[in-house]
Amino acid sequence: MKILVINSGSSSIKYQLYRMPDQQVIAKGLLEKIGEEISFFNQKSQKGTLELRKQISTHEQGIMFILEMLADREQGVIASVKEISGIGHRVVHGGEEFTASVLITPEVVAKIQQYADLAPLHNPPNLMGITACTKSLPQAIQVAAFDTAFHHSLPPHAYLYALPYGLYKKFGIRRYGFHGTSHRYVSKRLAAILNRPIEELNVITCHLGNGCSMAAVEKGLSVDTSMGLTPLEGLVMGTRSGDIDPAIVFYLVDKGYAPADINRLLNKQSGLLGISEISNDMRNLIEARDKGDERARIAIEIFCYRLRKYIGSYLAVLGRTDAVIFTGGIGENNAMIRWECLKGLRELGIEMDETLNAQAVKGAEAKVSSAASKTGVFVIPTNEELQIANDTYEITHRLVKVQED
Amino acid sequence: MKILVINSGSSSIKYQLYRMPDQQVIAKGLLEKIGEEISFFNQKSQKGTLELRKQISTHEQGIMFILEMLADREQGVIASVKEISGIGHRVVHGGEEFTASVLITPEVVAKIQQYADLAPLHNPPNLMGITACTKSLPQAIQVAAFDTAFHHSLPPHAYLYALPYGLYKKFGIRRYGFHGTSHRYVSKRLAAILNRPIEELNVITCHLGNGCSMAAVEKGLSVDTSMGLTPLEGLVMGTRSGDIDPAIVFYLVDKGYAPADINRLLNKQSGLLGISEISNDMRNLIEARDKGDERARIAIEIFCYRLRKYIGSYLAVLGRTDAVIFTGGIGENNAMIRWECLKGLRELGIEMDETLNAQAVKGAEAKVSSAASKTGVFVIPTNEELQIANDTYEITHRLVKVQED
Repeated sequence: MKILVINSGSSSIKYQLYRMPDQQVIAKGLLEKIGEEISFFNQKSQKGTLELRKQISTHEQGIMFILEMLADREQGVIASVKEISGIGHRVVHGGEEFTASVLITPEVVAKIQQYADLAPLHNPPNLMGITACTKSLPQAIQVAAFDTAFHHSLPPHAYLYALPYGLYKKFGIRRYGFHGTSHRYVSKRLAAILNRPIEELNVITCHLGNGCSMAAVEKGLSVDTSMGLTPLEGLVMGTRSGDIDPAIVFYLVDKGYAPADINRLLNKQSGLLGISEISNDMRNLIEARDKGDERARIAIEIFCYRLRKYIGSYLAVLGRTDAVIFTGGIGENNAMIRWECLKGLRELGIEMDETLNAQAVKGAEAKVSSAASKTGVFVIPTNEELQIANDTYEITHRLVKVQED
Repeated sequence: MKILVINSGSSSIKYQLYRMPDQQVIAKGLLEKIGEEISFFNQKSQKGTLELRKQISTHEQGIMFILEMLADREQGVIASVKEISGIGHRVVHGGEEFTASVLITPEVVAKIQQYADLAPLHNPPNLMGITACTKSLPQAIQVAAFDTAFHHSLPPHAYLYALPYGLYKKFGIRRYGFHGTSHRYVSKRLAAILNRPIEELNVITCHLGNGCSMAAVEKGLSVDTSMGLTPLEGLVMGTRSGDIDPAIVFYLVDKGYAPADINRLLNKQSGLLGISEISNDMRNLIEARDKGDERARIAIEIFCYRLRKYIGSYLAVLGRTDAVIFTGGIGENNAMIRWECLKGLRELGIEMDETLNAQAVKGAEAKVSSAASKTGVFVIPTNEELQIANDTYEITHRLVKVQED
């Protein structure tokens, strides 16, 4: 069975085609700059890398083009798009409604539309991908996998802000959390690596990419997470501030800033970029720091310090903690950052092994804590597409079986 | 030597008159509703309690009246106000300039004025108190004790937000922290109780009053604290939200709220009051919870949960931690809240003794952790007035000696 995974952004569509249940990636690709004069397309498969430039005006055209390329007689990997039984869509915001990946129905589409209010930059393009697929491949089963779903298990004391309760009831203002598919994937992978039931494990997961978030995962359930109503809260990120005194917003309003400008400033010009004034990319900052740049040094230090504080707070949330997991671009590839984040935590039962940590190879799973460390530390590359493919396969397989029975 | 301690608010003046160096309170009082039709005055001393109603229009009139009452032939406690050698003023915001209590000079007054920008509700009335005393008692030495001063030792990675660096340089946007006099007082008291030099101790201090803040105090120096640019950040408080996703502000702006209204909402209608919709007073909430009110229960739970997370994060900051100290109205008087805040932290080396905790007597210092607890837990009543009196006495004594030499 072939499963297509789609991540549809405002001007781009990322995809991977899986053969299931053996989880084989047959092709993956990216269509960028949709709606611009020239769109960029690339696809990788065993046929090699295909790169094309072409004008693609809409997401619908984009999806049609991707399907054509997958089934292309020369460059394609399938004989017909009809081989695609299920399509899994990444959807950012599932509100309080969606606690797991679901079959997309008109009701689900309406809900995703409704939650666009909470994720105005993400849910609408996610929906465009869904609509385009429904038109182009109506016979395929479509599934939505929500970034928020894994965090549905947060208890009220973790998801409620100390705000007037009416704001929660009326506007849905609460902690939702994001990166759920990644936090879920790596915590499940850990259980597999340790060969223990996930119901026995307490884990702190650190997803550190351009966006960064952490989760406290108790017995397989997310019980707290650092992102909140939006992905702005929590850790320091590439261009996002993470936690600040909310009164800073009013202070800047008093200084003459418009709220919309402050919003942009906190989301696009803060974080590592804001402090360093050099780059939002950790690799560039490390390079600058190693050349003696003081501001790059302090940006890295703040990033690691703030993460260390979250580790402490999630240790307090979980009590006994079996493991800390690093994932995402920074978490997987940067041994120095992992080291800095967890240094000085021996009293709390966390001790890295400097050699193991340094030796952890890009793209591979590794244990990087010392034998004496009460809480293990692991590097586990994330794979949100695979998690979505698995979810989509499960739902598709079940429905196809029902149809066949 | 007599030292007067003044806390001058927007419409009230609190004061205590000390005999130093023996730290004896000779009189203490409160003048409320300055500028209203009728102002309320009360003063307690060995002469008993004096209660008066009188119209007081300005802080200057208020200070003159307080001085009169202190030296009143019938109700007073001193023969002449000339006995007052030094006056210590609580000042909320000392910016980056003031790292300790200082002799008030015209330059100091100008700086306090300048920082009014950062504490518009506090520094101006603090200054009114200073100006009134300078006029009424020009021969007395005047000292300013800043709420922010104790936190001057925060390192950059703790005081910088992940915001564009220019906002720090241009507008002074950084973490300052507050309640410094209280955090300093109780951490010094702990050293005295343990009979150990403060330079050997790592302590987490929890000041829980109507405003709540915590500090990580390493070897006598504050290295992190939960309040930030303003007292809005950090823990859940009576009516303040503490930490939230800053994007909530923009979300509410999109819903039609004005920034000034959101500011008021976060400061005056949130926190315990906001969640419970019952009261900002922990005692009322406990009563309501015990009668079965679900919203009171969740408000208390959020309060304790968020504090517990800060404990974890400061444990990560400090590494080895000798003690957690509770102070302030809630911290001193509420055994159940202390218990809830620290439950489940045994893995992190903190274990309360249920009996000792329940037995801790209001107003007394007590150890409330078990013998096995790696980190001790203490209740230490705060005394900011005494700390200010001590600082004022030291400066006054030194200057008087210089004058006499």
